[in-house]
Amino acid sequence: MARTPEQFRESGIEVKLDTRVEEVDTSLGRARLADGTSLPYDHLVIATGARAIVPPLPGRDLPGVFTLKNLFDGLRIKKYIQEKPCRQALIIGAGFIGMEMCEALKNIGMEVSVLHRGNRPVNRWDPAFSQLVVEEMSRQGVSFIPDVQGTAIEYKEGKLYLQTNQGPFPADLILIAVGIKPEVALASEMGLELGKTGAIQVDFSQRASREEIFAVGDCAEVFHRVSNRWVNIPLGDIANKQGRVAGRNIGGNPMEFPGIVGAQAFKIFKLELAAAGLDETEAAAAGFQPVSNIVWGNSLPSAMPGSARIGLKLVADRATGKLLGAQAAGENGAVSRINTLSCALWSGMNIDEVGYLDLAYAPPVGTAWDLIHYGAQSLRKKL
Amino acid sequence: MARTPEQFRESGIEVKLDTRVEEVDTSLGRARLADGTSLPYDHLVIATGARAIVPPLPGRDLPGVFTLKNLFDGLRIKKYIQEKPCRQALIIGAGFIGMEMCEALKNIGMEVSVLHRGNRPVNRWDPAFSQLVVEEMSRQGVSFIPDVQGTAIEYKEGKLYLQTNQGPFPADLILIAVGIKPEVALASEMGLELGKTGAIQVDFSQRASREEIFAVGDCAEVFHRVSNRWVNIPLGDIANKQGRVAGRNIGGNPMEFPGIVGAQAFKIFKLELAAAGLDETEAAAAGFQPVSNIVWGNSLPSAMPGSARIGLKLVADRATGKLLGAQAAGENGAVSRINTLSCALWSGMNIDEVGYLDLAYAPPVGTAWDLIHYGAQSLRKKL
Repeated sequence: MARTPEQFRESGIEVKLDTRVEEVDTSLGRARLADGTSLPYDHLVIATGARAIVPPLPGRDLPGVFTLKNLFDGLRIKKYIQEKPCRQALIIGAGFIGMEMCEALKNIGMEVSVLHRGNRPVNRWDPAFSQLVVEEMSRQGVSFIPDVQGTAIEYKEGKLYLQTNQGPFPADLILIAVGIKPEVALASEMGLELGKTGAIQVDFSQRASREEIFAVGDCAEVFHRVSNRWVNIPLGDIANKQGRVAGRNIGGNPMEFPGIVGAQAFKIFKLELAAAGLDETEAAAAGFQPVSNIVWGNSLPSAMPGSARIGLKLVADRATGKLLGAQAAGENGAVSRINTLSCALWSGMNIDEVGYLDLAYAPPVGTAWDLIHYGAQSLRKKL
Repeated sequence: MARTPEQFRESGIEVKLDTRVEEVDTSLGRARLADGTSLPYDHLVIATGARAIVPPLPGRDLPGVFTLKNLFDGLRIKKYIQEKPCRQALIIGAGFIGMEMCEALKNIGMEVSVLHRGNRPVNRWDPAFSQLVVEEMSRQGVSFIPDVQGTAIEYKEGKLYLQTNQGPFPADLILIAVGIKPEVALASEMGLELGKTGAIQVDFSQRASREEIFAVGDCAEVFHRVSNRWVNIPLGDIANKQGRVAGRNIGGNPMEFPGIVGAQAFKIFKLELAAAGLDETEAAAAGFQPVSNIVWGNSLPSAMPGSARIGLKLVADRATGKLLGAQAAGENGAVSRINTLSCALWSGMNIDEVGYLDLAYAPPVGTAWDLIHYGAQSLRKKL
């Protein structure tokens, strides 16, 4: 549960809000704060997170133009919508934030368009699955406009206009959601090493390039167990785990962070999408010979209420048969398949094992051969 | 898809229905059929399944008294209900069949009582979870009567009466669902070895104690990867897998069955129950030192629609920290947790790894720390 600064103080922990750290002197072990005071430290944890990328669009600072990275951004958007008559919303970008916000804004009655410079949303997923996202947006009355490039935002007679290569789009509210990048300015100034991803380089104990300094969350790298590479995947569950690992190491109950397999998911209206591991491009870059296929089936026997069509893509290594990645999409059952397969990826299973995994079967909860089995067995034939 | 005998014949496969095998002469490699003819074989697959246990209750053969093991039993029950006025049903037994049938009979408007000789239903699950089953039955208007022992079934003036240690229970239909046992009469007569479980002993290729004879499904044993013992768990998904393994070995594309972890599930009205691995008793019998705990949480963040209370029990080995078993119950999310944990059991994971598994997180589909993490981390503290 979240605690207030007062509650922390009762536990002997000082929490300073609205307090920018201007500079850290690593030789003295002191952090200088914006109010001119400074604090000494034995251990320092950097959890500066990430910040929204804002393309250099003229007009990006106009009222009604937002990014969404933290709680305060959310409150600002909410207040704006409550105070101004907002009928039309434009969302620039089709990643997780774009997808979640198109649903949220649609649900409060706004006309919503998602504008994307690429030709399909959430391109971590296979085109067969991002196509389902396009169809779900269309079914729910959200416009998806591909291949559009904004050039400026203008304000005229009570309306915002996004000027683009496809002409102007009017709006009462514009959300720029084209991605985030790790916030590493302070870490750079302190001379900490950054990894190839641009995030702070850490080891398995969450230590940065100085032993007394830890980095956790969106600003830090994390070890990917499938690619065997350090990556930067800015997700809240990873941040939570890294924070706990750093805390244990500082507190004298050491542990190493075992890494991740890149499990992720989102929901847009009724559709669940989930993925774990590597896609073909990442697999090839990590030195594997990826082979993949997609199978379609039902989340439950088709006669059962709640049964939904679900697609499952698996990626494996031709040389070893090792499972490298999985993606799923459907109205239900997608996340649950991916969580099971995340565990298989974690353990380095090969697809022969995946094809015979023991999963709980009963007609109201699954089929005797699950889509996981079917997917692994079909992929086997392509190796 | 199911095929008719004619469709099989087109593929060059002869299917003989309503054809009892009276005897198998293993020295000649011939099966003698009830019609007096006999068939030669090079390979023989025994898939005789299981049969319902019927306690020696006087009156058990009266019209209106049924067991339910196969499609024909189901059709007989359906026909009886359609032809006779059936208002009251008694179900003797509180296993999977009893649970599924109490829902089915209640849903067609019957008054249903489940009578059980023990004091709680589905006793593979922890009492905390079988209590949820009792509450769900009660909420749905099904009576659960524990500690009852039937002594006879009588028919009087258009009604059946189950006489018991708690007095007579009237009924229009009585379903005896006290369990099943492997059908091994033919296998025994053929001199095939039976295992300690009473089911047919097989190896990883599904071969019985003669090389040319295979056994699959409910009549056969199966290797449990967690206990490292051969067990008999009569479930359709295991039968499917064993059938395919036998088929591949006969067909010249050999493979070994990798075994099971005992994943199983059922649903009663709105409640899902699932389990995998060992309970404390089985774990102790297999030479482990079991430690367990139960945690409760939400399947989704509590503010999300569809979030349900869910309980998760984990069992681990004190000496090694290895995960040994898992059980879950809740209106949703129980089966999906168990499938993920089945995969962890399959790989022999320890609970430190389970406590940091990478699972797909987004508020509409899960929480940053899943109940799986929470359960494993709490159990860690008890080791």
